[in-house]
Amino acid sequence: MEKSAPLDSALIARFAGIVGEHYALTAEADIAPYVVERRGLWAGRTGLVLRPGSVDEVSRILRLATDTRTPIVPQGGNTGLVGGQMPDRTGREVVLSLSRLDRIRELDPLSNTITAEAGVVLEKLHEAAEAAGRLFPLSLASQGSCQIGGNLSSNAGGTGVLAYGNSRELCMGVEVVLPTGEVLDDLRKLKKDNTGYDLKNLFVGAEGTLGVITAAVLKLFPKPKGREVAWAGVSSPPDALRLFGLAEDRAGAALTAFELIGATPLSFAEKHMPGGAVRPLTGEWPWHVLMEISSGRSAEDALALVEDILTAGLEAGMVGDAAIAQSLAQAAAFWKLREFLSDAQRPEGASIKHDISVPVASIPEFIARAAKAVASVSPEARVVCFGHMGDGNLHYNISQPVGGDSDAFLSIYRVMNKAVHDVVREFNGSISAEHGIGQLKRDELIATAPPIAIDLMRRIRAAFDPAGIMNPGKVI
Amino acid sequence: MEKSAPLDSALIARFAGIVGEHYALTAEADIAPYVVERRGLWAGRTGLVLRPGSVDEVSRILRLATDTRTPIVPQGGNTGLVGGQMPDRTGREVVLSLSRLDRIRELDPLSNTITAEAGVVLEKLHEAAEAAGRLFPLSLASQGSCQIGGNLSSNAGGTGVLAYGNSRELCMGVEVVLPTGEVLDDLRKLKKDNTGYDLKNLFVGAEGTLGVITAAVLKLFPKPKGREVAWAGVSSPPDALRLFGLAEDRAGAALTAFELIGATPLSFAEKHMPGGAVRPLTGEWPWHVLMEISSGRSAEDALALVEDILTAGLEAGMVGDAAIAQSLAQAAAFWKLREFLSDAQRPEGASIKHDISVPVASIPEFIARAAKAVASVSPEARVVCFGHMGDGNLHYNISQPVGGDSDAFLSIYRVMNKAVHDVVREFNGSISAEHGIGQLKRDELIATAPPIAIDLMRRIRAAFDPAGIMNPGKVI
Repeated sequence: MEKSAPLDSALIARFAGIVGEHYALTAEADIAPYVVERRGLWAGRTGLVLRPGSVDEVSRILRLATDTRTPIVPQGGNTGLVGGQMPDRTGREVVLSLSRLDRIRELDPLSNTITAEAGVVLEKLHEAAEAAGRLFPLSLASQGSCQIGGNLSSNAGGTGVLAYGNSRELCMGVEVVLPTGEVLDDLRKLKKDNTGYDLKNLFVGAEGTLGVITAAVLKLFPKPKGREVAWAGVSSPPDALRLFGLAEDRAGAALTAFELIGATPLSFAEKHMPGGAVRPLTGEWPWHVLMEISSGRSAEDALALVEDILTAGLEAGMVGDAAIAQSLAQAAAFWKLREFLSDAQRPEGASIKHDISVPVASIPEFIARAAKAVASVSPEARVVCFGHMGDGNLHYNISQPVGGDSDAFLSIYRVMNKAVHDVVREFNGSISAEHGIGQLKRDELIATAPPIAIDLMRRIRAAFDPAGIMNPGKVI
Repeated sequence: MEKSAPLDSALIARFAGIVGEHYALTAEADIAPYVVERRGLWAGRTGLVLRPGSVDEVSRILRLATDTRTPIVPQGGNTGLVGGQMPDRTGREVVLSLSRLDRIRELDPLSNTITAEAGVVLEKLHEAAEAAGRLFPLSLASQGSCQIGGNLSSNAGGTGVLAYGNSRELCMGVEVVLPTGEVLDDLRKLKKDNTGYDLKNLFVGAEGTLGVITAAVLKLFPKPKGREVAWAGVSSPPDALRLFGLAEDRAGAALTAFELIGATPLSFAEKHMPGGAVRPLTGEWPWHVLMEISSGRSAEDALALVEDILTAGLEAGMVGDAAIAQSLAQAAAFWKLREFLSDAQRPEGASIKHDISVPVASIPEFIARAAKAVASVSPEARVVCFGHMGDGNLHYNISQPVGGDSDAFLSIYRVMNKAVHDVVREFNGSISAEHGIGQLKRDELIATAPPIAIDLMRRIRAAFDPAGIMNPGKVI
């Protein structure tokens, strides 16, 4: 790492004057956690990390940044998977950490809303909702450290989307500091509001390129009265799709998760789980489904629903075998297995990851065609397919051949990406269903999205941020 | 009406050349239905109505309009309530009717989507969904004539929002012709897609100021297996709110409508309904609730749920009396009474209308404070309060005093608006929950919204439509 700090000291002093010396980090050791992403895939450099403690400080920082044309990289819990929260390697970009804006401003149990600042850790929102007898359903593997501002900026998905929607759908209103320092207060608790263009949904998912979300009004839901988690072994993706149709038909909105898991990722998880994995079924199945039913009525109702679905699925031959978790501990163990699938790839060597979506009905055909595409690039590569089938969203990852060379495998990253994404495009699907674009997929988005869509996005960006200071080099 | 046509004949001929003479209306009699809104509240003038038959024709029309700086007013079923679909009185604005783009392009029962062109009448979508064993839940009094393109452009609400969301939430993707004539094809059937800014939600609700929606992918839902409609008499808005909380708790997503109706609008409807109105309850109640339960499980389940809710409500003293519709005909009669409330005001003289929303929990307090505000402006005016209580959305209308002078009453329109909307603002509510802004509320929106919000909207508009041809004078 070069030692020279490209930000000049007078400018650093002006920014530090806004937040106070203590919250303007300039020492390499203090800065380190903000410039390396936890998996080590993304790293950048900066001469300054700012940790404002109020919306007013954020406003003054952005005004100064616009005046001095200083690039700003907003950052939440630093858990993003596409490099959107990382400064570049010039050292000139200032990291703006929102972690000190960590107040829950209000919880309104009658309107079923919670108003939280950007730096509130997702798990804290779960706890606050729980304490009020409510549910905040956004659920991610990183929930112990990710922050709601980052969740909203990346329109995070996760396992709760099927029944409750993604971050965008869970957000009713936002408070945003614009690049000029102006503050847009749109913290409304309204289910309906048709007064002009939908600004909220522009900021949600913009990955910090249009402004900085400093607070949001989020929807709460009644806490389910009964919850059942089941594991089913199925013979094929078409059977899994039929089972999904059956479960939707019988349970409707009570179907709160429907996850598809291939035999390969499951075997990785069973092999590498620290302390050993629970094995939900004794037999071997090529595909598995993790299903969750949440009843608003009663525990008995949830159990009756899941039993009804599995019985009908077994009778119709869609399900080969099935187990219903017999305790909260077992339910948690089923979910732990699911959440570990991503990490379980690491001991198996290099992997090439995808976060794709297609129409739900096309999932089986996508899986069939994508397997052929992968084999045509690397016949020995292992398909690690799992994900939120009910949302049409798969983490269609590829692990290197057994005993092969990691570097050789990673050298085909782009070719493999293209092969898989070409199949996605055959189904008019998405190359980033829930992780966003960041740095990782920017070039591909620009190259493959309709040019007019990219053009419109650039016009919006220029209209909101004429000085071009907000998270440069990200998204578009 | 002046006879001179301010559009020059050479320009008219160029536009007519795109759609063909037959679909370029220039005769006054042909144009008449497009320049007067059905209630007669909004009227405009034009020298030309264009009825394109393809997306390509729409594209060529807009390109020519941009080249010649000709203002374009897109129009669907001409049922909008805020004048958004009306040309101004200069005659220079060309009306672009989408009614010939009336194909349902695809219905995908596995992905639960329907792809329809802008001119498809809402009722046709209901019928197509029904024929496939599905539900398209957008439900409006004007559904026999309104078109889905207009519904999306105005982000229409209606009675189905509580369980299924508004038009924005029912739309997965759009095809839009931009002011330059370029076509954005974003007709995706994806539940998740995080590839850049949310363009879809900008076009939905933009009231034709950013481009012309020519087609959309819409969500379908499983058809409920059981449906019950109930009518309850309650003593007060706080009791209605408690009943809503109870119904949400017991029925969850099966609660598909919760409408609040004051005694005054109900008495108007009973008095003026052609052929006489059904009277759901024998006694007199100051407030009424129309509740609908739709079960995805069975007819028995729907009945058990509604009985459970009403029994608990009666026992807890929230409900004074209640009736469950005993037949489909009676259920339809309950709904007909609700749908007639708006029309029933006309025989009672002049009225001043509002379409407001506040947080659901604030509805009772809003009703109390708004009544005082109305009385301070006109002590004898009659409050006609009804609406989608479950969405926090009331049609808080004011009818003139009995025997008073209509013109005198209408002369206080702005004062009354301001008095009611000031109360809305005390609750951080919306002055247009579902009808949009159009011409009617443009000045008020600009005067009372945060200036930075209006500024951002103007920047978006200028970025999308630099020639300023799209529906000038509407929204902002």
